[in-house]
Amino acid sequence: MPPEDAAAEAVALIWANLRAVDSHGVLRIPWYLDNIEKGIMNPRPNIRVVKETPATMLIDADHALGPVVTIQAVHRVVEKAKQVGICWVLIRNLTHQGALGFYTQMIAEEGLAGILFVCSPPNMAPYGARTTGVHNSPISIAVPAKKHLPLNLDMATSVVAGGKIWLAVDKDVLIPEGWGLGKDGRPTTDPRKVEALLPVGGPKGSGLAIMFECLSSIMAGNALIGPTLLGREIGPSTTGQTGPGIGVRPNYVRKNVQNGVVAAIDISTFTDVEGYKENIDDLIDAVKALPRAEGFSEILVPGEPEQRAFNQRSRTGIPLPEGTIRNLLSVSEKYDVRFPSTV
Amino acid sequence: MPPEDAAAEAVALIWANLRAVDSHGVLRIPWYLDNIEKGIMNPRPNIRVVKETPATMLIDADHALGPVVTIQAVHRVVEKAKQVGICWVLIRNLTHQGALGFYTQMIAEEGLAGILFVCSPPNMAPYGARTTGVHNSPISIAVPAKKHLPLNLDMATSVVAGGKIWLAVDKDVLIPEGWGLGKDGRPTTDPRKVEALLPVGGPKGSGLAIMFECLSSIMAGNALIGPTLLGREIGPSTTGQTGPGIGVRPNYVRKNVQNGVVAAIDISTFTDVEGYKENIDDLIDAVKALPRAEGFSEILVPGEPEQRAFNQRSRTGIPLPEGTIRNLLSVSEKYDVRFPSTV
Repeated sequence: MPPEDAAAEAVALIWANLRAVDSHGVLRIPWYLDNIEKGIMNPRPNIRVVKETPATMLIDADHALGPVVTIQAVHRVVEKAKQVGICWVLIRNLTHQGALGFYTQMIAEEGLAGILFVCSPPNMAPYGARTTGVHNSPISIAVPAKKHLPLNLDMATSVVAGGKIWLAVDKDVLIPEGWGLGKDGRPTTDPRKVEALLPVGGPKGSGLAIMFECLSSIMAGNALIGPTLLGREIGPSTTGQTGPGIGVRPNYVRKNVQNGVVAAIDISTFTDVEGYKENIDDLIDAVKALPRAEGFSEILVPGEPEQRAFNQRSRTGIPLPEGTIRNLLSVSEKYDVRFPSTV
Repeated sequence: MPPEDAAAEAVALIWANLRAVDSHGVLRIPWYLDNIEKGIMNPRPNIRVVKETPATMLIDADHALGPVVTIQAVHRVVEKAKQVGICWVLIRNLTHQGALGFYTQMIAEEGLAGILFVCSPPNMAPYGARTTGVHNSPISIAVPAKKHLPLNLDMATSVVAGGKIWLAVDKDVLIPEGWGLGKDGRPTTDPRKVEALLPVGGPKGSGLAIMFECLSSIMAGNALIGPTLLGREIGPSTTGQTGPGIGVRPNYVRKNVQNGVVAAIDISTFTDVEGYKENIDDLIDAVKALPRAEGFSEILVPGEPEQRAFNQRSRTGIPLPEGTIRNLLSVSEKYDVRFPSTV
């Protein structure tokens, strides 16, 4: 792939690792390479704007790696939002975007409010189901502050993100009950046996995930959930209804297509930007100053735990689990790429 | 107030009762009347568009009753979304909107996707706090289907909506632990003692609520959370940091101002509308056909429980708890309004 595209992917992964979002960091590299080899991720995509209005765009990513197309989309969405107040972009046929907070933070750093969410084929049990039937679609929302760093929420609609299950595999530890269901439709604590993630708040996480599919995949003319569940294949490498266990690094990869929304709101359309940022500062200060619940030494606002990790890790480095290093070593040998001496 | 505005409010309340969302139904009437008497809700508002672009509007509601201004906003947002693909409207200084699903359903019935969320002064403990510090901002998202009724998610960012606590008071029943905290910052099962709702999914519900304040109140230049917590009064009847107990019908009402987002997305901007609706049908059919988890006799999609109740209640009537009837009787006497013989 073009060096600048490889750099975009690397920046997105290391952005996550530096913020202790290791589930969306370099542990994904072997899986990405596997996807590229199988023709699922396209290292030389023909990214094009399919439709456009003053306030919207529909972009076809041609199976580009997530950061390659999404960084382009962020630049366009910011530009267009500044014209009419909001820009709402759908990207279809992209592949794994990594941590969504990376992109909303870019938008917030431009002084706008950013919203992203994304959908993939099913990996989560809808409320009331014992197998996968919806994606644990994450959403990120970020806004700029003045003296503080941007508020940045980045959350999956499942109890935990799928990558946290992978991480438990790499660390060889058990997971708490309530994170996922096994093949028998019952809760499991073995991360290798997770077949379906569970939604946060039951019908709430489940409902958000269903609506995000409606606003992204179906809106982009690229429905993922319905066709997958109804057995209408979405690609030669689709593995069918449930796919490989989420906790298992798949030997056989489903066509890992995503569709997502990238939106930006221009603050100056509605209110004074400097006043806005000061109000965000006040909100942060006020929430952090509240009396704490038992067992809490501090109240953290969205994005703050990641920022703490960044401050630490940009000084002391990124601790990688043995399993992740082993997997990275193995692909570096396979592709004859020099393994960084600093790892 | 003008009869057509009273009718708008009545329709919104009964829409909720017919769908068994009794927490947002006629049980609110005594509280609304109290708010009107105290000058908090304005029966003769001067609603005006403060700012406008082809894709956005900022509306000042002048403390209108929620449905009065929001129904107007829905008509404008649909009209404008059809021009440029999306319209994103901020309403500031409105008062209680009732069930948000009422408005998103209107948008979906026009063939567009609808998104609403709204913020009020604090009634929920942010993750890690023992007192209120954020509003349990609800969000509703609805999209149209073809053979099915619209998918319609309507959820608070708390474990349950505040009205569910009121309903427990009216029914004189205990609430499960985990719904709210008492004055001492500990969980309580007495609905009369709830001082702070708890967020769904801990940092997730809490984070969404914080970001909704940033996208609605602060964006509309009418910050609610920060100024309230920092002790900068937002009106003569503000009661300060925590306000009256949520489970107590307040004698002393805080200035119950809200700010909200009303957005619509025109499906035809991105994809074929008929195909879209068929895909929503497929999604509904596919999710409902999944193997069920233990203890579930059926998988319900967003909006379906409410629709079931509507089918039932529009035939057999709306069962009201004794407490609600007592409160309605009391205000009907106070204002010398004939009490409906059908109650």
